[in-house]
Amino acid sequence: MNDSALLADYYELTMAQGYFLSDHNPQVVFDMFFRRLPFGNGYAIFAGLEEFLEHLEELRFSPEELQFLEGTGIFRKEFLDFLGQFQFQGEIFAMGEGSLVFPGEPLVQVRSSLLAAQLIETRLLNTINFQTLIATKASRIYGASREGRILEFGLRRAQGANGGLSASRAAYIGGASATSNTLAGMCFNIPVAGTMAHSWIMAFEDEYQAFKRYAEFYPDNPVFLIDTFDTLGSGIESAIRVGQELKSRGKSIGVRLDSGDLQYLSHKVREKLDQAGLKDASIAVSNDLNEEIIEQLIADETPIDQWGVGTELVTGGRDSSLTGVYKLAASKKGNEWIPAIKISDNIEKVTTPGIKQVYRFRNEDGIPLGDMIALEDEEIRPGEDFICHHPVTEYTRYKMTADRYKTVEPLLHRCFDNGSRIRPPTPLSSMRERSLEAIKNLDPTHKRLINPHIYKVSLSDRLFTMKDSLIKRFLHI
Amino acid sequence: MNDSALLADYYELTMAQGYFLSDHNPQVVFDMFFRRLPFGNGYAIFAGLEEFLEHLEELRFSPEELQFLEGTGIFRKEFLDFLGQFQFQGEIFAMGEGSLVFPGEPLVQVRSSLLAAQLIETRLLNTINFQTLIATKASRIYGASREGRILEFGLRRAQGANGGLSASRAAYIGGASATSNTLAGMCFNIPVAGTMAHSWIMAFEDEYQAFKRYAEFYPDNPVFLIDTFDTLGSGIESAIRVGQELKSRGKSIGVRLDSGDLQYLSHKVREKLDQAGLKDASIAVSNDLNEEIIEQLIADETPIDQWGVGTELVTGGRDSSLTGVYKLAASKKGNEWIPAIKISDNIEKVTTPGIKQVYRFRNEDGIPLGDMIALEDEEIRPGEDFICHHPVTEYTRYKMTADRYKTVEPLLHRCFDNGSRIRPPTPLSSMRERSLEAIKNLDPTHKRLINPHIYKVSLSDRLFTMKDSLIKRFLHI
Repeated sequence: MNDSALLADYYELTMAQGYFLSDHNPQVVFDMFFRRLPFGNGYAIFAGLEEFLEHLEELRFSPEELQFLEGTGIFRKEFLDFLGQFQFQGEIFAMGEGSLVFPGEPLVQVRSSLLAAQLIETRLLNTINFQTLIATKASRIYGASREGRILEFGLRRAQGANGGLSASRAAYIGGASATSNTLAGMCFNIPVAGTMAHSWIMAFEDEYQAFKRYAEFYPDNPVFLIDTFDTLGSGIESAIRVGQELKSRGKSIGVRLDSGDLQYLSHKVREKLDQAGLKDASIAVSNDLNEEIIEQLIADETPIDQWGVGTELVTGGRDSSLTGVYKLAASKKGNEWIPAIKISDNIEKVTTPGIKQVYRFRNEDGIPLGDMIALEDEEIRPGEDFICHHPVTEYTRYKMTADRYKTVEPLLHRCFDNGSRIRPPTPLSSMRERSLEAIKNLDPTHKRLINPHIYKVSLSDRLFTMKDSLIKRFLHI
Repeated sequence: MNDSALLADYYELTMAQGYFLSDHNPQVVFDMFFRRLPFGNGYAIFAGLEEFLEHLEELRFSPEELQFLEGTGIFRKEFLDFLGQFQFQGEIFAMGEGSLVFPGEPLVQVRSSLLAAQLIETRLLNTINFQTLIATKASRIYGASREGRILEFGLRRAQGANGGLSASRAAYIGGASATSNTLAGMCFNIPVAGTMAHSWIMAFEDEYQAFKRYAEFYPDNPVFLIDTFDTLGSGIESAIRVGQELKSRGKSIGVRLDSGDLQYLSHKVREKLDQAGLKDASIAVSNDLNEEIIEQLIADETPIDQWGVGTELVTGGRDSSLTGVYKLAASKKGNEWIPAIKISDNIEKVTTPGIKQVYRFRNEDGIPLGDMIALEDEEIRPGEDFICHHPVTEYTRYKMTADRYKTVEPLLHRCFDNGSRIRPPTPLSSMRERSLEAIKNLDPTHKRLINPHIYKVSLSDRLFTMKDSLIKRFLHI
């Protein structure tokens, strides 16, 4: 079901038929980008690409799907025959999954026939928007915990089955250490983790019996949920009793708090564990956590070892979507590429025309200094100075002089051609390493959870000039 | 993938093995319920049930899944053999999909072995939480539009492939008229709809050519997107020109606004359409709409005929999860059912014990007056007076006297037994009718978007007394 070619907005199909029937199907370039960072964050973590590319490889219209389309009475036989043969044959350029991305930058660039580019739009946006949102959320949570151990526990609050599966994948890329989602473990090789539910405790005579039975089956570092009846009474006492029994066999335990004031309880529980000689016992907490709560608990030096984060991590919480868009950037007329622009009364929403590449300047320590979007055929060589323009106003610009940066690197890479991926898929753990490494190298001012320093994304001099002249031509000014 | 038995929190499997190995697997009753209404709404629309039941019918552990579990090194052969044979054989009681539900009421009741009840928990919560959230959001949006025509356009911003598919399904139950999601049209028989993208316009010489070509292929009420370049200039003028050509052939058109001030533009566009003799041309709007924006536009008498709602409808917007939970209510010891309770420092979070039924009182016009949760073996007969207790405090109660209500109806119905559904699935369109009918009958004070009148959900006298005595026994008071 998740692989269906019909997982597309209906208008993609009606427009595609329109292009087909009018024999108007030029080669085009579409950019996928977003305008606003979610959560007020200073950066986003790009995710979802490999899933999208895998879908592209397998994209076919099945006889059942064609029959459904035929039944609408809207599609003609010759177009349905065409769809029956359709495979996506264009090229895809994209950022690497797990890398840092910013507003206005093309994250995915589709180069294909207009018709083909339209047919894949919805699925591209669905996959990249959501996974980039969640990888970014995970990165915030990971940062707030000071690179702590984040357990993603969100499946029960996720938006549908695949909502949960995609969220587990993206959360891992962004910094989660493990997931409760068993299927995500199987599909993506993410470590799975879990403790016990209150119902386990309630199914036995008392907490001591419940913990003891659990430890019989899972003696390797069992984590006991101690807040079912009385956290600082029967809960911690029973955990300590079983913990001491296990300790005599060389095993350690953990406890989990799922309600109450986590700061107060963590301190009290730590004290009791230490007094009982269980200094190696860990404390895990859960209960509607998010990055703000975690940052506060860390700032207050709360002794917490693991963070179980569910709802907010898999949905994004208040910011539950990345509003990425997919816009025509150029189309071919004869042998010439014509840059395309979408004008809007809101100047921020005017698109940047042309076939583009994104460059990142870094200093000698590998720290990113700023990004510049240029036309693909510009030669961007290290050792030169560049005028970097604000994407919408001509009043704001700066010069990236050769002495300020060490390297300048293109970020968009060709990853799909001739119906399949160019390279074997990157393992998820490598994407996770890439994102953690990228965050490590980012200036701390960009990592503040609230009001971060804005990372500069500029246009090259040539691109700005071209955009400016196209706007003025449209507006007759 | 969406049907995998492993789409479950890992701890469900470790707990299940624990019950299996300790030969501790009593019959139990679990309740699924939520504590807080989303969006500050006055009611929720129950959705997701049939999808969950279908999953239950098909729930099997595949050899590949068992192999994955074996590879973790945590599961023993005898348990894996058991899982290989597992089918869900318990009973499910539930509300009808599309019906009005309120906090604290069991929406789904699972009666099975403890092990089986645990294995299905995550999937149940994943399905019901999300679809109930979205059906409720759709109901708010439908209400705000004064029962207008809502087009759900959210797939590109949905949370994964299945997040989008489930959202389309739930949005339709809650009141949407159509979806842009073609696959949802095929799977659920929801009407599909769509207009055109800005890229269609940009692919032609100008707007007139773009609209004209579109109308050639889709002459039946084509909807033209008029804000690509200049809404009140070339946009509306080109639409009118093609509209007049179509009118001479007896056809009508629509226009869509996707940016700018929708109130201002709708009035201006309406004026121009009317002046051009296109009084039957419809106006559709989109652009990050939600119920508050729609209510404001309606209050200002903006001439809008169709509402395209995407992101907020399929994600819930700021409130992106329904935090439904699944709690043990009773377990069988010998021949006796023992009510189970989960105590919490937060009195609102103490669960209501026992095997329960939910009753709805209605007056002679069918208007709901309040709900009462009672023990299943209580005889609730019309014509009697009932003391209705606030679920947590003994200070608040009221009497539902026989003269105040006309009917009292049980809401939980047995819908699954012996491995399959008891009745054939209800068509989605009937669920939608049920929800629209239920909303029509609800007192308007409960339907306010902000600060609605709280609908009373009470406990019966016997249930309250039982809960009270269990709490006091635990707290030794």
